[in-house]
Amino acid sequence: MRIAVLGTGVVGQALATKLVELGHEVRMGSRTADNEQASAWTAAAGSRASHGTFAKAAAFGALVFNCTAGASSLAALRSAGEKNLNGKILVDVANPLDFSEGMPPTLTVCNTDSLGEQIQREFPAAQVVKAFNTVNYRVMVDPGLVGGAHDVFVCGDDEDAKVRVKELIARFGWESILDLGDITAARGTEMMLPLWIRLWGFMETTDFNLKVVGPAD
Amino acid sequence: MRIAVLGTGVVGQALATKLVELGHEVRMGSRTADNEQASAWTAAAGSRASHGTFAKAAAFGALVFNCTAGASSLAALRSAGEKNLNGKILVDVANPLDFSEGMPPTLTVCNTDSLGEQIQREFPAAQVVKAFNTVNYRVMVDPGLVGGAHDVFVCGDDEDAKVRVKELIARFGWESILDLGDITAARGTEMMLPLWIRLWGFMETTDFNLKVVGPAD
Repeated sequence: MRIAVLGTGVVGQALATKLVELGHEVRMGSRTADNEQASAWTAAAGSRASHGTFAKAAAFGALVFNCTAGASSLAALRSAGEKNLNGKILVDVANPLDFSEGMPPTLTVCNTDSLGEQIQREFPAAQVVKAFNTVNYRVMVDPGLVGGAHDVFVCGDDEDAKVRVKELIARFGWESILDLGDITAARGTEMMLPLWIRLWGFMETTDFNLKVVGPAD
Repeated sequence: MRIAVLGTGVVGQALATKLVELGHEVRMGSRTADNEQASAWTAAAGSRASHGTFAKAAAFGALVFNCTAGASSLAALRSAGEKNLNGKILVDVANPLDFSEGMPPTLTVCNTDSLGEQIQREFPAAQVVKAFNTVNYRVMVDPGLVGGAHDVFVCGDDEDAKVRVKELIARFGWESILDLGDITAARGTEMMLPLWIRLWGFMETTDFNLKVVGPAD
């Protein structure tokens, strides 16, 4: 299918490359049409890859990934244009991290709201699915980097959209994708970031993830 | 050893009972000396159990567990009295949950601060160790309720205090206790609560926990 990947950073590059490998036509979107990273990616990723402005990319995609920095995601999506997002699945991978005071970052929104909810409110005719924001980009596209069973989370208000996103990301190799409910569950997955950052320090690698372990028999 | 358990709810009762079972002398503290739940617990828990005011309990304990409701923990600890906490390990199990707007609760403090940090700041001569707040009280005292390997977290500024808390709770059956660093890591473990609450809904039981899964070999 035709997929837009908004954002040219490591997350966008990793997801866009994986999606091309899986046979999708992918257009990477950025603030400007001639973004250097997007141009380099297009040149390297082959005939199914292209790039353009946020608006051109969103218009191209039947499904849109938001891989922009969380603190500027709403601005990027406004630039993509509501009419280019309406009726489409919008997979929000971003975390609303504020690095302006250095490390560790804080969240620009949390507790009584979340970036996922902000996006859904601002683009009510898009089907926002929060996904993948609790794992590093390397693990997103190659879950086998983590040894043993582990889980990734999705949430969103549209059941069909979640089913389709789960089908899409299962192709990346994900065997356990837990649906946590409506988009307000994004508060939970976004607020996991401070713990994730501590675990990164503890594990001394980003190639880790969490497994939800249920009751003993 | 002599241990104070501040709080008479399910968390305090479970921890106090477990500590008595392990041979410790435990005094349960509450706002009033004649708290009904504390009296009933003392009557049931045997000769090593006693109860009293927060201050009487804290004065008794060589180590103090804060098992009060997070939203009122600072008030409870003030009532316990700084002089009764100074120089002691203060294990903070509480979560700063605000149920005033119904379910799901929000946090009374998060993002740039945490309850663990607030307690450490207010009682600088106590060695605050945040622990256990990411698991249900049943799992705290009986980690075997969860099937397979799983982790619990501690954090705090005092290395010796963390070692001693790890030794103490290992006796509950915990095989994997991860030290996430200084007390600011409490932001991470407290902000995990919104995700925990969603996972509770997903798992349909409180007998679950998380396992941090590292890289494949």
